[in-house]
Amino acid sequence: MEIQDLVKRLKQKNDSKVVLFVSDGIGGLAQQPGGKTELETAATPNLDRLAKIGVLGSSIPIKPGITPGSGPGHLGIFGYDPLKHEIGRGVLEATGIGFPVGSDDVCIRCNFCTLDANRNITDRRAGRIPTPESAPLAESLNAVKIPGVEIFVKPVQEHRFAVVFRAAGLGGNVYDTDPQKTGVPPLDPVAMDANDTASLKTVEVAKEFVRQAEKILAGQPKANGLTLRGFAKKPNITPFEEVTGMRPAAIAVYPMYKGLASLVGMTIEGMPKTIDEEINVLEQVWDKYDFFFIHWKYTDSRGEDGNFDEKVKMIEKYDEMVARIEKLGPTVFCSTGDHSTPAVMAGHSFHPVPVLVAGQNVRTDACQCFGETECLKGGLGMFEAMYLMPQLMAFAGRLAKFGA
Amino acid sequence: MEIQDLVKRLKQKNDSKVVLFVSDGIGGLAQQPGGKTELETAATPNLDRLAKIGVLGSSIPIKPGITPGSGPGHLGIFGYDPLKHEIGRGVLEATGIGFPVGSDDVCIRCNFCTLDANRNITDRRAGRIPTPESAPLAESLNAVKIPGVEIFVKPVQEHRFAVVFRAAGLGGNVYDTDPQKTGVPPLDPVAMDANDTASLKTVEVAKEFVRQAEKILAGQPKANGLTLRGFAKKPNITPFEEVTGMRPAAIAVYPMYKGLASLVGMTIEGMPKTIDEEINVLEQVWDKYDFFFIHWKYTDSRGEDGNFDEKVKMIEKYDEMVARIEKLGPTVFCSTGDHSTPAVMAGHSFHPVPVLVAGQNVRTDACQCFGETECLKGGLGMFEAMYLMPQLMAFAGRLAKFGA
Repeated sequence: MEIQDLVKRLKQKNDSKVVLFVSDGIGGLAQQPGGKTELETAATPNLDRLAKIGVLGSSIPIKPGITPGSGPGHLGIFGYDPLKHEIGRGVLEATGIGFPVGSDDVCIRCNFCTLDANRNITDRRAGRIPTPESAPLAESLNAVKIPGVEIFVKPVQEHRFAVVFRAAGLGGNVYDTDPQKTGVPPLDPVAMDANDTASLKTVEVAKEFVRQAEKILAGQPKANGLTLRGFAKKPNITPFEEVTGMRPAAIAVYPMYKGLASLVGMTIEGMPKTIDEEINVLEQVWDKYDFFFIHWKYTDSRGEDGNFDEKVKMIEKYDEMVARIEKLGPTVFCSTGDHSTPAVMAGHSFHPVPVLVAGQNVRTDACQCFGETECLKGGLGMFEAMYLMPQLMAFAGRLAKFGA
Repeated sequence: MEIQDLVKRLKQKNDSKVVLFVSDGIGGLAQQPGGKTELETAATPNLDRLAKIGVLGSSIPIKPGITPGSGPGHLGIFGYDPLKHEIGRGVLEATGIGFPVGSDDVCIRCNFCTLDANRNITDRRAGRIPTPESAPLAESLNAVKIPGVEIFVKPVQEHRFAVVFRAAGLGGNVYDTDPQKTGVPPLDPVAMDANDTASLKTVEVAKEFVRQAEKILAGQPKANGLTLRGFAKKPNITPFEEVTGMRPAAIAVYPMYKGLASLVGMTIEGMPKTIDEEINVLEQVWDKYDFFFIHWKYTDSRGEDGNFDEKVKMIEKYDEMVARIEKLGPTVFCSTGDHSTPAVMAGHSFHPVPVLVAGQNVRTDACQCFGETECLKGGLGMFEAMYLMPQLMAFAGRLAKFGA
């Protein structure tokens, strides 16, 4: 039995409020052996105070040694098995620009390319056409009309754009049309299984889309053709509220995280631009929801930049907000990340992620501050991220007993 | 591969004796942050002495955050995956009154109800008829005769009683007959699947049982009808001895725990009424078995009562018995619980359960006493309860190498 199925069965409602305050990529590494990580270096008086009265642990995003992208990293902390709910590339692209992907949608990553007079590709990336030129071209493709199918075309960056076909009965199992070389025309879209009528329907829609798109783009010097990749439908994820019984709100600055939250059915609240504004939104919507996912991006960004000192500062900014959240009186408060992003690696990593839970029914451990090494002594032990949500619900009294 | 299948394959016999001394609901919570749990508060000189020379750890009864009932809690520490062997409500009811459920049995929880002249229910619980009145009525239903089916009717409490149909080829997938409201007659029993011939057979038996039972009860002022709920067959559990190669004895005061032990094929020894008498039984049967499950109930009971101080005393009583068990010279001794029952929560909880193992081949850790926080430093780490039994067998030299 998958953990979310068990949770769905045992969930019970009450008046508790659960806050999941995510500092993206918070886990880190010391700059030299024996040194301190970014989190251990940062001055985090609020988190340290909660560490004394709460319980700590370490979360393994996927499996030991496996580094997650943002998609599986968040699916895990939302309580889903990230290995059983893969997010296709097309869906991740659409999600990443904040497009609210529905269950009837087929999402596709598209590239502009340059075609010669014989429709052979001369440049697979349309000369890396700059975004100010490519974005209006992508928008212009919204003029494509196919009966019975809603079509959304969204610019992404340079030669990249996203297309969504929306219609009942479309399948997502279609091969890429990028031939991966020049001197040949784009491939025709082909269904992976000749008996998959849903994907065959998508193939017909895709062919017609390309036909009309090439007409619209005709005469463009660089971007007069297109290739389609990563056809994908939304994974079949039971909505968060159906699993947990909690009305979920998501508060984030970046489209990708709003998109990931909306994939599991969270309501996106506000249009905050800073972490202070995020907490303003939290205060405004506090009475309307049971569960709050708040996403802080810049710990990951500075980690990705390889900037240890700046990541430390971003953690300190995050810590400041904890006091504001506490004032709202959450029943259960959790501080963690979706993965580690050690500045010395300048990228996501597989290292366990520090977890702090404070609130009702926690069994306090001997930990005195919030940091990776201290978390190893924590009462939550080391667990896979998908078991975080059942624990938060358990502390909140939102899970009934299994068996009599 | 399920863990018990691996254990079954690798088991080997020797002369070792393994004792699993269960203090039900032993895990707890402090009464305030930074305080001590019931176990940490109790004076446990024997357990603390063993903690120094043994190895500690924390056991997760089911999965992180999941609170177990007694059934799944015990299946776990007996070495079975409690999510894969669910015990149906009817079986648990029969087990709870100590009925030795066999593999041909369909167990049913029954309620007496009050019917009017039109056979409509006027009271779903027969006016909560007191047990002294209801018990003889339940016993009287043993007069029902159905060819080819053995029938056992056992009183439980007030309006509740248990019925077992025993015959080859009966199925357990039958809907409840309680309409959940008054003013209508009891529902007819109906199989969940119209093609399930075994359950259709049970439906016919149930109909005939109700017909005859209503005749017997005719004229009763309160309990002149009945509803049937929680039809269930025994889960298909490989017997403990077949899995482990150990001849198992179970020593318990309460019928529920004798029932759970008998579900996995343990032999129930003695009729002890106190923990001292339980250890007397242990001494008497020591030579006849390889494995001993001894169940101490009152740590859970006082936890359920919300009585911290009394739970502490029950733990101290449990500790006293440890010295007597040690004198018998077990090869491997384990002290743990099936779950936590923090007095401050007055019920079962999901918190990890302290585990202590002393004896042959243990790798001693730095722990100095037996308590939840100390267990976090323990050499067994944090593990799911179903992995306790393979570890006890390993210490006892009862598991062969996997692969060459």
